[in-house]
Amino acid sequence: MPLPLTLLNLLHETFPQGAVSTAEVERRAYAHDNSRHAQIPDAVVFPTTHDQVEALVRACREHRVPLTARGGGTSSTGASVPMAGGVVACFTRMNRILRIAPDDRLAVVEPGVTNEALQQALAPHGFFWAPDPGSAPWCAVGGNLACNASGPRAVKYGSTRDNVLGLAAVAGTGESFRAGTHTTKDSTGYDLTRLLIGSEGTLALITETTLKLTPRPAAVRSLRASYTDAGAAARAVARIMAQPVTPSALEFMDALALKLARDHQPEAGVPEADALLMIEVDGEPETLDVAAHAVARAARGDGLTDLVVATDAAQTAALWAARKALSLAQRAATQHKVNEDVVVPVSRLPELVNGVRRLAEKHAVPIVSFGHAGNGNLHVNFLPRDVDEIERAYAALPELFALVIALEGTLSGEHGIGVVKREFMPLALPAATLDLMRGIKAAFDPDGILNPGKLLP
Amino acid sequence: MPLPLTLLNLLHETFPQGAVSTAEVERRAYAHDNSRHAQIPDAVVFPTTHDQVEALVRACREHRVPLTARGGGTSSTGASVPMAGGVVACFTRMNRILRIAPDDRLAVVEPGVTNEALQQALAPHGFFWAPDPGSAPWCAVGGNLACNASGPRAVKYGSTRDNVLGLAAVAGTGESFRAGTHTTKDSTGYDLTRLLIGSEGTLALITETTLKLTPRPAAVRSLRASYTDAGAAARAVARIMAQPVTPSALEFMDALALKLARDHQPEAGVPEADALLMIEVDGEPETLDVAAHAVARAARGDGLTDLVVATDAAQTAALWAARKALSLAQRAATQHKVNEDVVVPVSRLPELVNGVRRLAEKHAVPIVSFGHAGNGNLHVNFLPRDVDEIERAYAALPELFALVIALEGTLSGEHGIGVVKREFMPLALPAATLDLMRGIKAAFDPDGILNPGKLLP
Ligand SMILES: Cc1cc2nc3c(=O)[nH]c(=O)nc-3n(C[C@H](O)[C@H](O)[C@H](O)COP(=O)(O)OP(=O)(O)OC[C@H]3O[C@@H](n4cnc5c(N)ncnc54)[C@H](O)[C@@H]3O)c2cc1C
Ligand SMILES: Cc1cc2nc3c(=O)[nH]c(=O)nc-3n(C[C@H](O)[C@H](O)[C@H](O)COP(=O)(O)OP(=O)(O)OC[C@H]3O[C@@H](n4cnc5c(N)ncnc54)[C@H](O)[C@@H]3O)c2cc1C
Repeated sequence: MPLPLTLLNLLHETFPQGAVSTAEVERRAYAHDNSRHAQIPDAVVFPTTHDQVEALVRACREHRVPLTARGGGTSSTGASVPMAGGVVACFTRMNRILRIAPDDRLAVVEPGVTNEALQQALAPHGFFWAPDPGSAPWCAVGGNLACNASGPRAVKYGSTRDNVLGLAAVAGTGESFRAGTHTTKDSTGYDLTRLLIGSEGTLALITETTLKLTPRPAAVRSLRASYTDAGAAARAVARIMAQPVTPSALEFMDALALKLARDHQPEAGVPEADALLMIEVDGEPETLDVAAHAVARAARGDGLTDLVVATDAAQTAALWAARKALSLAQRAATQHKVNEDVVVPVSRLPELVNGVRRLAEKHAVPIVSFGHAGNGNLHVNFLPRDVDEIERAYAALPELFALVIALEGTLSGEHGIGVVKREFMPLALPAATLDLMRGIKAAFDPDGILNPGKLLP
Repeated sequence: MPLPLTLLNLLHETFPQGAVSTAEVERRAYAHDNSRHAQIPDAVVFPTTHDQVEALVRACREHRVPLTARGGGTSSTGASVPMAGGVVACFTRMNRILRIAPDDRLAVVEPGVTNEALQQALAPHGFFWAPDPGSAPWCAVGGNLACNASGPRAVKYGSTRDNVLGLAAVAGTGESFRAGTHTTKDSTGYDLTRLLIGSEGTLALITETTLKLTPRPAAVRSLRASYTDAGAAARAVARIMAQPVTPSALEFMDALALKLARDHQPEAGVPEADALLMIEVDGEPETLDVAAHAVARAARGDGLTDLVVATDAAQTAALWAARKALSLAQRAATQHKVNEDVVVPVSRLPELVNGVRRLAEKHAVPIVSFGHAGNGNLHVNFLPRDVDEIERAYAALPELFALVIALEGTLSGEHGIGVVKREFMPLALPAATLDLMRGIKAAFDPDGILNPGKLLP
């Protein structure tokens, strides 16, 4: 459906040449993200200023045309797919780092800067920004905010939501606003900043953000603990989290994950265990012995078969090789991975891991579980290899979510809801909670032009 | 204005005997908080269950009667004063600790439990809840959430907003809802949890909350650094925050604060400096030398006149005696303290401290500055001693807020807005931001019955 001519004219007035396109090749390039969903937009624009974004939202609202923001397009949930067509606003050219202030532990950036480019710019100042998704080279900070992204470091340093101080944005009304502060404390009114974090571009388009920085630890040390079974590993996770030294990473791999990694890369030295924990501690160099000792003590217990502490960079790389091998192994195993990121309280991890194994048996489809155990956030990835297995994987999905909810967990720890988990939202949240979310949506985006078909069922 | 009889009957049906009162003595007892404002409510109720709260909100909504939640009544902003009369819901009897789960690093509590009672219950498990307001013995966790309270530890461990996972509540519509999770990560829809934190009882009444716990550090060590002037101390704060070891407290006292403490308690050993930093580091005992060394190195610089490290409990108490003496000294100095908690980026602290000194001179009223320098969050307390000084203090207030905003700071770091800072909100936030906040208010509380006259101008 081509756009109304008056809207197209407005877009051409608003954006310089080369920053608005209706060419099919370009529209096709922005139809996908990292999910199985796709929809070709009617136009793609590349804003570089806040004023352009404001004009864009106003023009789309006036014409009731859907508008979907896009960062790196790496979402696993269809969040950046323009499901109702309309305009895609791709922020990758609005990517300046406006300010780095070590004294204030903050950076002000435009939304299109990649996570990796930001980290590289921060490193010489001795700081990092805590969110560390595996997609760092490609995903944008704006996308990180919109999904509340994170990674292994979240167990110690928090998710995106814990690491943003403020932002500028344009609501679906077309109104520009600022939320939050340049300070690390703020009790001045409703928290619109964190409301926008995780809102997947459905409330407002973010045009600038002030990020909370964390000092880079002077040193890190890695440990690897092998266990006879997933339950033993999961109990060790709970013990580690119940003692004072919080690890900077606490990652789990189940038996199938280890087998896949071993088979795919026999030279990587993946241990012959049925469950593995990768643990990292960080801090001043002189403190690492104590920290490593504390987590090692907690890692020990029934079912531990091996505990290795890396003492140099080569050993550290060797310890993490299993985790690296797994990503490639999954890709080699299937093109049809169904990628979940469910989360349960840490004490329920044994039940989650066992429940997932039962689901894999019942539905006769391979499932690997691995990931951010210190937050109870596991990637439960279905790896169907043919059409039948794909069908069975999707049949098993509602049971996975029901299990997670029964364990007092929730649907997503870091990827968000997008299109793919939208229909499961009523499982996770009471109707009254969803109604309040709809009320907020109506206040920010009364005509529903922003990223329709996402997040709210 | 007495309540409609049908409402009164509903209240008596909803609450057991002794849990609803219209006696004047009781109503007078709930007219105040820690601000200069007061208004006598028409009735006071003491809920102990969620269902009672739901019935209460519905009854008040049906009758369009104002309803103000109350915890310990320690707010400094008039937030818990029922400015429009109506019903006060005092939560102090709804104070059970429902669950403490060290593995999951969480506790589930009712809103009326005091901060101190909670900390005492957590201590044997080796955990604490980060928010540590000076009012801990009296204030309630529900009040801490509603104000986004914090204290000295926030510099390392965050404010209330950073330390809550989820909650149950009743919106102003009368609808019950749950928000958030029992997990430390969550990307499942809009963040209603943090939206309620800091909302001062204007959106919903909180009936239960799941708190994020932090392991108690095994040991702490205190340092005290004296400086020739406030600028030198403030620059040291910036240096301390720009290096990797984050202190667990970083408190500042200006010249007048030190003088008041010294005069009030000559035996407390308050140093003859013009500016003081109290610094605390925490961690495993074996790591404290390194941590103390790192912050001491950063504390050194132009203007440092003395640096003391406490080596035992007695010395630690002696170092903190100045800070303790100050609270009493202020109370002795005046009954009319105007208590602010402005916040600026750490690098702007020298400008804030100098600006406050200029304000004190210009308006000829004593002002002390002290507090949570590591977050840039200073208590700027006007200490007027007579009617003229009181008048001049209130005349100076808008200039203080204008200064703070000019320094990229904001009105409140931990006390909130309430009645007293409401009229200054347009200074801090653009009109569009306030409009979005009003839209949220309308979605949660369409008839405006919850705590009218607060937060939003
Ligand atoms: C290989 C790979 C590894 C991954 N690893 C992780 C991981 O470890 N942890 C993790 O959390 N995620 C991970 N992801 C998922 C994904 O990278 C993250 O969700 C990331 O935050 C998305 O960023 P993006 O810039 O690609 O956003 P996009 O996919 O472009 O968009 C995602 C959402 O953000 C919205 N959005 C984008 N920009 C704006 C803006 N300026 N204003 C408002 N809304 C906006 C979009 O509308 C959409 O709803 C991974 C993905 C891949 C492909
Ligand atoms: C001596 C003293 C020292 C203090 N020190 C600090 C400090 O160091 N740091 C700091 O941050 N503050 C401090 N304060 C301010 C105050 O203690 C805090 O704001 C505290 O969080 C208020 O809690 P409360 O239970 O007393 O709340 P109240 O004063 O009873 O109420 C405060 C607000 O919370 C709302 N509320 C209460 N319960 C609920 C509920 N269940 N649901 C919804 N809304 C609710 C009320 O409507 C009101 O808007 C201090 C106050 C005093 C008197």
